Amino acid sequence: MGIAIISPNRNPQVWIQNIKKLDDSIDIQVYPEISRKDDVEVVLLWQHPKGILKEFPNLKLICSMGAGVDHILSDDTIDPKLPITRIVDEKLTFSMTNYCIMGVLNYHRQTERYKQQQKAKKWDMTDPEKDVHVGVLGVGELGGDVIEKLQSLNIKVSGYGNSEKSGLSFPYYFGDQLDTFLNEVNIIVCLLPLTSQTENFLNIDFFRKCTKGTYIINVARGKHLVEEDLLEAIREGQISGALLDVFRTEPLPVGHAFWDEEKITITPHIASVTNPDAAAPQIVENYHRLLNNQLLKNSINRLKGY
Amino acid sequence: MGIAIISPNRNPQVWIQNIKKLDDSIDIQVYPEISRKDDVEVVLLWQHPKGILKEFPNLKLICSMGAGVDHILSDDTIDPKLPITRIVDEKLTFSMTNYCIMGVLNYHRQTERYKQQQKAKKWDMTDPEKDVHVGVLGVGELGGDVIEKLQSLNIKVSGYGNSEKSGLSFPYYFGDQLDTFLNEVNIIVCLLPLTSQTENFLNIDFFRKCTKGTYIINVARGKHLVEEDLLEAIREGQISGALLDVFRTEPLPVGHAFWDEEKITITPHIASVTNPDAAAPQIVENYHRLLNNQLLKNSINRLKGY
Repeated sequence: MGIAIISPNRNPQVWIQNIKKLDDSIDIQVYPEISRKDDVEVVLLWQHPKGILKEFPNLKLICSMGAGVDHILSDDTIDPKLPITRIVDEKLTFSMTNYCIMGVLNYHRQTERYKQQQKAKKWDMTDPEKDVHVGVLGVGELGGDVIEKLQSLNIKVSGYGNSEKSGLSFPYYFGDQLDTFLNEVNIIVCLLPLTSQTENFLNIDFFRKCTKGTYIINVARGKHLVEEDLLEAIREGQISGALLDVFRTEPLPVGHAFWDEEKITITPHIASVTNPDAAAPQIVENYHRLLNNQLLKNSINRLKGY
Repeated sequence: MGIAIISPNRNPQVWIQNIKKLDDSIDIQVYPEISRKDDVEVVLLWQHPKGILKEFPNLKLICSMGAGVDHILSDDTIDPKLPITRIVDEKLTFSMTNYCIMGVLNYHRQTERYKQQQKAKKWDMTDPEKDVHVGVLGVGELGGDVIEKLQSLNIKVSGYGNSEKSGLSFPYYFGDQLDTFLNEVNIIVCLLPLTSQTENFLNIDFFRKCTKGTYIINVARGKHLVEEDLLEAIREGQISGALLDVFRTEPLPVGHAFWDEEKITITPHIASVTNPDAAAPQIVENYHRLLNNQLLKNSINRLKGY
């Protein structure tokens, strides 16, 4: 039994080292040099070429190399009976949460306004803070942590998700309660999983339902956002600005309108990056669990899409 | 018995309204129109003219209108036997803490670097985070809160203060352990009280003891910082930059070198502003405690200076 790493745009070396450190006996092959396809029972995937998994007749487990699995579920040639696991990484959560909090605080404390004042050598002490009430879209592992940390800073926060939940320490809305949720918040943090239901969730209808002047932070996936709709909502003054870490095409093309839009702040998909140090033990543990017919950790629900 | 408000640079109206709302019977006079000086037993001070308290023969209590009392202690014409109280304001703590965390996260997540990359339409995902270990100077009400909140975000933090303390949940140094403290941190948040011992604390000797590239956040008082020494330490590369909210002269003079120094971010003393809604109840409570010969709340230790 062996592992194949298929991640054309990522350097696999650090993954190999980390896995070997934990279990030197594991046989690892790396795409595109996979000569012994029959030996592959586990694949580690990041943006694999669609259809390629058909080449592995003995495949038993698909592991995403990150927190998201949309890159796997969007390949409809994959046998739906194969289990899929994802990475749950404290370091990833730490980075994602602190990035979001940074975005919230820069809006709350008007970092951009004071930068302009400094440029103009202007000393203006009036209205030092903007009132904020953060709305987190998606209250899973990552969204839940952002909410908890914002609460610890005494910043008002509400959550919105797909399904009913109870016993939460914050106002929570789901399904058709979106309008009520949008009415009470003025910053949106998008941490939704990418599914057929959530693709294009941040569109012009959504923006027009927001409180006027709402600020958008998208750290989930580029496909959650209809990019031209955001530009339109900013022109209308409906949305006051955005902090974006993910885009429909990455790297963001040089000619893209986002680069020059003053009210949009861009970072190059660095809000959180999976750390192989933390991820490798999860891969190796699931490898052993598979060998021993044990329940897999962090496996996803294919119907839900996360 | 009555109160006099002496705050030449602040509008007293909102203070009067808030106090009257709580106890309409309190007699309030406002500087410079104080005709019945004998009636004044309590003064509310913010940057009062030095020496003026000698004009009130029946004075029993001095209340600072903010968290700091250095503006009172620096007036050596004041009878040292008079008790002094300060404001402890949750809202003030909230603002101060979130400002400091914003500064820490912007350094940690390299906000300025990504702003430059956006300007240059450059997509560079390498090294997305700077490792940070925050050192908080002064672990009183405000410094303690900053430490607690940074810990809740899983950011490494150590404290340094004047006196020995035990039972803390973070590494703490005091007195001549400054070098050890500076060795383990790479961001300094200054929240010291301003006393004769802490004036000019952030000077060139201090900067040269810092880990190379340390980042400075000063939200305490302008007089903690020797301003030309900071510029020199930045030129030397010893200090990588600073976020400053307070200055020796405020408003910061138009010709000051800080305005144009790229590595210094300036805000106009807005990190936290005392909120009369929260402060007035503390003033009124101490007024009643004084009337009833009860122990005063939030009184300061004149020898310590805070």
